[in-house]
Amino acid sequence: MFFASDNGGPAAPEVMAAMMHANEGTAMPYGADPIMDRVRAQIREVFEAPEAEVYLVATGTAANSLALATMVQPWQTIYCHRLAHIEEDECGAPEFYTGGSKLTLLEGPSAKIDPESLRQAIDYTARAGVHNVQKGVLSITNATETGTIYTPAEVAELTAIAKDSGIPAHMDGARFANALVRLGCTPAELTWEAGIEALSLGGTKNGLVGVEAVVLFNPNRAWEFELRRKRGGHLFSKHRFLSAQMEAYLTDGLWLKLARKANAAADRLAKGILNVPGASLMHAVEANAIFASWPRKGHRAAQAAEAKYYHWPFDQSLEGPDDEMISARLVCNWATSDAEVDQFLQLIS
Amino acid sequence: MFFASDNGGPAAPEVMAAMMHANEGTAMPYGADPIMDRVRAQIREVFEAPEAEVYLVATGTAANSLALATMVQPWQTIYCHRLAHIEEDECGAPEFYTGGSKLTLLEGPSAKIDPESLRQAIDYTARAGVHNVQKGVLSITNATETGTIYTPAEVAELTAIAKDSGIPAHMDGARFANALVRLGCTPAELTWEAGIEALSLGGTKNGLVGVEAVVLFNPNRAWEFELRRKRGGHLFSKHRFLSAQMEAYLTDGLWLKLARKANAAADRLAKGILNVPGASLMHAVEANAIFASWPRKGHRAAQAAEAKYYHWPFDQSLEGPDDEMISARLVCNWATSDAEVDQFLQLIS
Amino acid sequence: MFFASDNGGPAAPEVMAAMMHANEGTAMPYGADPIMDRVRAQIREVFEAPEAEVYLVATGTAANSLALATMVQPWQTIYCHRLAHIEEDECGAPEFYTGGSKLTLLEGPSAKIDPESLRQAIDYTARAGVHNVQKGVLSITNATETGTIYTPAEVAELTAIAKDSGIPAHMDGARFANALVRLGCTPAELTWEAGIEALSLGGTKNGLVGVEAVVLFNPNRAWEFELRRKRGGHLFSKHRFLSAQMEAYLTDGLWLKLARKANAAADRLAKGILNVPGASLMHAVEANAIFASWPRKGHRAAQAAEAKYYHWPFDQSLEGPDDEMISARLVCNWATSDAEVDQFLQLIS
Amino acid sequence: MFFASDNGGPAAPEVMAAMMHANEGTAMPYGADPIMDRVRAQIREVFEAPEAEVYLVATGTAANSLALATMVQPWQTIYCHRLAHIEEDECGAPEFYTGGSKLTLLEGPSAKIDPESLRQAIDYTARAGVHNVQKGVLSITNATETGTIYTPAEVAELTAIAKDSGIPAHMDGARFANALVRLGCTPAELTWEAGIEALSLGGTKNGLVGVEAVVLFNPNRAWEFELRRKRGGHLFSKHRFLSAQMEAYLTDGLWLKLARKANAAADRLAKGILNVPGASLMHAVEANAIFASWPRKGHRAAQAAEAKYYHWPFDQSLEGPDDEMISARLVCNWATSDAEVDQFLQLIS
Repeated sequence: MFFASDNGGPAAPEVMAAMMHANEGTAMPYGADPIMDRVRAQIREVFEAPEAEVYLVATGTAANSLALATMVQPWQTIYCHRLAHIEEDECGAPEFYTGGSKLTLLEGPSAKIDPESLRQAIDYTARAGVHNVQKGVLSITNATETGTIYTPAEVAELTAIAKDSGIPAHMDGARFANALVRLGCTPAELTWEAGIEALSLGGTKNGLVGVEAVVLFNPNRAWEFELRRKRGGHLFSKHRFLSAQMEAYLTDGLWLKLARKANAAADRLAKGILNVPGASLMHAVEANAIFASWPRKGHRAAQAAEAKYYHWPFDQSLEGPDDEMISARLVCNWATSDAEVDQFLQLIS
Repeated sequence: MFFASDNGGPAAPEVMAAMMHANEGTAMPYGADPIMDRVRAQIREVFEAPEAEVYLVATGTAANSLALATMVQPWQTIYCHRLAHIEEDECGAPEFYTGGSKLTLLEGPSAKIDPESLRQAIDYTARAGVHNVQKGVLSITNATETGTIYTPAEVAELTAIAKDSGIPAHMDGARFANALVRLGCTPAELTWEAGIEALSLGGTKNGLVGVEAVVLFNPNRAWEFELRRKRGGHLFSKHRFLSAQMEAYLTDGLWLKLARKANAAADRLAKGILNVPGASLMHAVEANAIFASWPRKGHRAAQAAEAKYYHWPFDQSLEGPDDEMISARLVCNWATSDAEVDQFLQLIS
Repeated sequence: MFFASDNGGPAAPEVMAAMMHANEGTAMPYGADPIMDRVRAQIREVFEAPEAEVYLVATGTAANSLALATMVQPWQTIYCHRLAHIEEDECGAPEFYTGGSKLTLLEGPSAKIDPESLRQAIDYTARAGVHNVQKGVLSITNATETGTIYTPAEVAELTAIAKDSGIPAHMDGARFANALVRLGCTPAELTWEAGIEALSLGGTKNGLVGVEAVVLFNPNRAWEFELRRKRGGHLFSKHRFLSAQMEAYLTDGLWLKLARKANAAADRLAKGILNVPGASLMHAVEANAIFASWPRKGHRAAQAAEAKYYHWPFDQSLEGPDDEMISARLVCNWATSDAEVDQFLQLIS
Repeated sequence: MFFASDNGGPAAPEVMAAMMHANEGTAMPYGADPIMDRVRAQIREVFEAPEAEVYLVATGTAANSLALATMVQPWQTIYCHRLAHIEEDECGAPEFYTGGSKLTLLEGPSAKIDPESLRQAIDYTARAGVHNVQKGVLSITNATETGTIYTPAEVAELTAIAKDSGIPAHMDGARFANALVRLGCTPAELTWEAGIEALSLGGTKNGLVGVEAVVLFNPNRAWEFELRRKRGGHLFSKHRFLSAQMEAYLTDGLWLKLARKANAAADRLAKGILNVPGASLMHAVEANAIFASWPRKGHRAAQAAEAKYYHWPFDQSLEGPDDEMISARLVCNWATSDAEVDQFLQLIS
């Protein structure tokens, strides 16, 4: 019973097999491997973006920080939700990679940016000219940190506000596949057609060993991206092992299958939790994460059985009245089984 | 016939098997996996350094830059050889990670630092106090970029000069195993016993998919290192896959076996080249790299047969007199076969 | 009628005379001038801090950024009020000088930090360990950006909360003298006795040409400060001209006299504004700045007469109903005359 | 007898008078003062560059670092002479302001860049593409750190080499006036007509209190420069005091008169030194600095009489044989009197 994070799950067998296969013989390093050529073609096709540039890195933090750094100057600000991963969980990596850009924190329910909050923040920026940090870039997380998703129309509404002020838009898609399969739209519709210039396309949380793609729909600064990646220590010599993972991920829709499995497990879990007397959801379950509360006694039982998940916020105690509500975050991954979910539900019921 | 770089070689089968094995079930992310506990213990034992702190990253550039950044302030300088990887091949990653430290370039034959050059450089530093960049850290590459090695006594001589001025020493050991097996000394003798405070222990060039260990013999700033690693985007969520590689690498002396194979291939190749009329070595062959020159016609034949290696310097042409000498760099990896070497030798002879 | 900012006012005659006097003959550069020795002694005496280290720079942004950079690591955060100068008016200088520290924005009325907001922010920091930005430093502005002041007890309450979490405290004292004379306390009581480790002691807004002192009550990192100042281009070769200004400023209590004059002008102005029908103050007038609103027709008259001040917020229009309230910021300086104030009051009445 | 540096000299009376004059009444801050409009017009006229953008800062380090930062990316290198001020005397300020650019050190006698050294360095840069630091900017110091000067033709030869590789050129003109009056050419001939895109136009060493102008002949990135200046804490609120100095400096050719006086003093001093038996010059005396050696006994006498200057290198001792040669640096400023020079010469003869 592992719900601590989707990054605690295994890699998909197809991915491991591809790595094994890639290990045959020698290959030119640093992205000059032939597999990378195929990956580039795949992503261009999947995203209907024949001119997009594609780069692989191994962590989501690297993908986000490097993408943002090519889109923003040190004296500009990054607009993002107060709960965005880039604000909350990257130990200041965006500040590091951008050379000290500020992050302007936006409001909105369930970690989704309220358009009005974005509009006000942009209006407020640089009102005194040279004395203030300047307008930089918008970063949208989809699926969000609370497991909710933006529709293409919602993305387009935000990017339109940004574009009106000359600001490009980035999407942190660490869980892009989870959002995509839920929406049933095309990758293009959720990205460049909705005004996104650069996408961090997650793989690690969805069944890879450790690969994220950065997709630059606007390839103007592709060479700068390459230099930043190298300078950041994120250009792999044995790059073929990254390429192989991503190739397998995109082949025969594996990435979508994996995301559907994770989402389905989350649905099953959420439905079961809501059957627990007193339980409730804190956010809509739209991807593979659940934020819910249920009575303390259920938490005691689950943790006694070594179920892994986090109280949310962290500092709630197992000590106290049995029936008091304790809130928690549970994240499913592609390999979360029905049996695992059901065992957990039995414990907390 | 692949001699372009050791990073073009495959991963060792034991390493791939370990990754497959690590893929079973779930694991806590970000280095909290149980394999990492074993790796830490292994390295402490292998290096006879029970208090050393050990961290894994995926690239050599990350290992070097993060280690150096914890040892030097932005207004200090890094003393290194003019040909060091950190100066020549990391696109300024040390400058990026340190916040703008300078690199003071030292001289010495075959990419080995001349102690007198170090002494003079240190004496020259900060002669005008606050106006100058200050003394920072010494970085020694072993094996060097030209395939030569430092003995423990040579390392100790350099670190002693540094220590006299209060300067700690780092070792870039991207090819540490190749140096070690050639010297026949212990890991401790070549590192902390010789005055090294932090080691970048290479794995990728020697049979891993992509893992380097940073070993902090002085663990005072270990927590800072962890924060820098995270902030640099180099903390892996599915860390178990790094741990598993390193565990296999260190188990039953695999790392030493792989290095011996690469070195032996280089010896065989060097010996053969010297049989070519007119051929000569530019540097002693002490690890797994060969810098040699032989007549142009041999290069033509080799490249016609699609042998992969680099002219060194790059800009020498295949056009020109048959017997003119062209110099080249050839690097063997653990999987370089005798047949491959012999086929190459036949072509250039 | 100049109320746009106190930095639009002239320098005090005593200050100009001191610069003229300092121009005689030659002097050792870079702070080795004898006047600086006297300034250091003056500040130590005025602040009853015999071990404090004292440095001069020419701008408040430099003073704040350099002081903060010696107190915080790039992966740590600076706690400050949402309206602090370091957040709002320095174009990201703190981020630049610190190497990318975050600023955590606190709430509280009239630009004064609410202790509870500080407590909650500290508690929230680094809840997930290495994944988050870490606790860094507290920065308090006194007098604040809205012209209010903290008492020594209020400062001490905030620094105590910080110290409980191991966090040092900085004071942005661009208008320190204005706060001090209003409070009638000693410089020591308002700084180190109240838990402040480093002070940006403003001079420019209060009658100097351009000098701020950084006073390090905790001199542990004084040498680092000197290196950062030089590296930032803020070490003056003809330093004697900075020293001379500061010496004059502190001699015979000139700095206090100047601040009293500015505060008195603000009081007179505020009192007069409140006599305007419908007018009101947005913040208490405790230093030399006034935030007030009065009917639009009064603004029209004042601006027709070329009175200089800012609408606050900027984007309010002179077009519209006569009696609608328009809010504004007015700042007095030491040279603001009663006649100037009275002329203005007549216009808006 | 003060020859320690030209920055130890006084400001010119005309400059002090201008500051006094500027102190009348109020003025809009941050460069919006009317004097700055006149300064901008003056510089455009003097340099025959009607589209140049002009900014004032207070230190040479700020001028150089900010100018270079707008011309180079963090992953690019700055080509300069090994003895350039930006390499030797700014505590890494260029690295700080550029976000970690490298400085590639060039050779050449008397601190003048050998064109062949530049050509080779450029050729060597980025030979391996993304793995290396990239070509950035050329920085030429005129007059040089050893008191020599480049002719317009020499400047043009270097900038042409740079331009062939797409590299812009910067001139560190901390002692620009000293070079200019010696050459007898126009400011345009020595700068933009010779291929210079940005100039740090020194004032402080030549009779100002503390002002340098940055002249951007290519104004494309002027707004970026303004933001960098503000972010670096180098935008003065009471900017009129900088403007006033520069206006006086450029009025009626004051800057040229001051430089001629300093150069003449250096000529007189050099001529006198060469009359000392055994004395010799280390570099041609082409501006206001002298590098010369003469017998130790003369140094003893001079230093007993408290003459101020530096041994060059620093570490030569007054202890030792009377007739051994000790080398030194002597710098004259506009106020160095014949009497002062003659007194010194008498002592060392």
